[in-house]
Amino acid sequence: MALDRLIEKIAEKQNPTVAGLDPKLDYVPEYIKQKAFSEHGETLKGAAEALLQFNKGLIDALCDIVPAVKPQAAYYEMYGYEGVKALYDTQEYARSKGMFVITDGKRNDIGSTMEAYAAAHLGKTKVGSTEYEPFLGDALTVNGYFGSDGINPVINVCKQYDKGMFVLAKTSNPSSGELQDMKIDDRTVYEVMGDMCEEWGKDLMGKHGYSGVGIVAGATYPQQIEILRARLPHTFFLIPGYGAQGASAKDISAAFGKNGLGGIVNSSRGIMCAYQKEKCDEKDFAAAARREAIRMRDEIMGYVNKIEL
Amino acid sequence: MALDRLIEKIAEKQNPTVAGLDPKLDYVPEYIKQKAFSEHGETLKGAAEALLQFNKGLIDALCDIVPAVKPQAAYYEMYGYEGVKALYDTQEYARSKGMFVITDGKRNDIGSTMEAYAAAHLGKTKVGSTEYEPFLGDALTVNGYFGSDGINPVINVCKQYDKGMFVLAKTSNPSSGELQDMKIDDRTVYEVMGDMCEEWGKDLMGKHGYSGVGIVAGATYPQQIEILRARLPHTFFLIPGYGAQGASAKDISAAFGKNGLGGIVNSSRGIMCAYQKEKCDEKDFAAAARREAIRMRDEIMGYVNKIEL
Repeated sequence: MALDRLIEKIAEKQNPTVAGLDPKLDYVPEYIKQKAFSEHGETLKGAAEALLQFNKGLIDALCDIVPAVKPQAAYYEMYGYEGVKALYDTQEYARSKGMFVITDGKRNDIGSTMEAYAAAHLGKTKVGSTEYEPFLGDALTVNGYFGSDGINPVINVCKQYDKGMFVLAKTSNPSSGELQDMKIDDRTVYEVMGDMCEEWGKDLMGKHGYSGVGIVAGATYPQQIEILRARLPHTFFLIPGYGAQGASAKDISAAFGKNGLGGIVNSSRGIMCAYQKEKCDEKDFAAAARREAIRMRDEIMGYVNKIEL
Repeated sequence: MALDRLIEKIAEKQNPTVAGLDPKLDYVPEYIKQKAFSEHGETLKGAAEALLQFNKGLIDALCDIVPAVKPQAAYYEMYGYEGVKALYDTQEYARSKGMFVITDGKRNDIGSTMEAYAAAHLGKTKVGSTEYEPFLGDALTVNGYFGSDGINPVINVCKQYDKGMFVLAKTSNPSSGELQDMKIDDRTVYEVMGDMCEEWGKDLMGKHGYSGVGIVAGATYPQQIEILRARLPHTFFLIPGYGAQGASAKDISAAFGKNGLGGIVNSSRGIMCAYQKEKCDEKDFAAAARREAIRMRDEIMGYVNKIEL
């Protein structure tokens, strides 16, 4: 099942991290923007082209050391359908470089509509007699508020096309507790969601001990990561919040087991904006991203055992 | 605030319903598909063109009697970025015909990312010195699982651009109770979400007694609609589940107050596929949709008082 492919890439590179591609235009070096604007004007198309070229530079610099990318749909939708095309083109380029693509869309809806989202992001769409891949994710983030109806169509598509998903459990933002920490009998809402994922995952078990139904568990809540890890032995964790959101490598260590498996840690701004933080030449943005990705990998591997399948 | 514009259109047309535009290719008449495919091939672009022409026909037939359309993002994403362009073009056409556009995306994320979604769907994006509207919604459906952080950026954009939102409370699908009906002390999860919306709405109060922060409350759960209406006097309801999902006009009556205000009832398949149900000539699809929209309006107004502002 799909997270197996991710887990194998993580083991191969001894690197349980993912580069978030959330490319605000402010993050893109001026020379890339100027070239794109000179070709397409200061338009949504010009902006989308700048994002794509920025992403390609990052992917080129990271693909041999980082197993996965996580483009965040919002930052592409912000540039309209031209931006959404840049999302597709980014996915295609990452795939061509052997990276695992986690589309961060947090999609959710009733069953019939989730079939459409699952086809859009993980499956195929038939037009006449031809099947197309509308988008090119290997996994999709989803929100489980609808219960099983909203998850089963994704499970079906994951089975058919060897894909995976990550369901929101405990999110990394400051107000995540307003609903997620509330108690339902003796469990919090995030534990209830986590328990559902462990159950849904039984239908999608992989060969490395984890199912295709992962959860999102924010690095900014290390204690909750520990609780979730203890409850959910077969559930893989996508862990945002490291770096720019304030969490450290130590904060995520509880997600990982003796064999070094258990999760993948995201950094978006930390990697994308490394050249701004370093204050190096903006033309050096990709090399700076690579330096930060290596630093992050090494820092995190300081708290994670050697990854063994 | 934004739902005021919706409420005024509802009153003007004496029609508290919205036409869901969830255009599966199977719903589109053959002659429209054939024309689109002859121009663009059996491609995602061809499919997207067929969806757009179908939507335009529906909008033309409905715009003088139905106040709003609700395009569901999933059914456009299914056709890739070409489909997403058809979403934009549909929004633009509906706006040009004076209809209120509810973009059904159920977006949700941490604050910084919600800023991007809010800009994408309700606000503007700056490229160089020019501002663009990436998509053209008047309101957006959102999921409140992240708490305030995920809602405040949308509130800010709603204030700035006179837009609105609908937050998921009790959804219409069979498994919605798995999480939403669970009890947190003496309240269900859907009541907790509803109470949050009533609170968030204080920051976005309109002049007709309702705020810009509405909720989604499924017609398939009439008892829960009654409970939510009693708890949330200033919250407007977007009510899916009528028709194809099985709910009747009587089921939604509790959402409405003495002045006929309180909610808007969605029908998607019922309207889009009216020509298939009638078994009339497919070229008559738009007239059939209009007949069904009038039938639905009259049936619902049988349970709703004359709408008075």
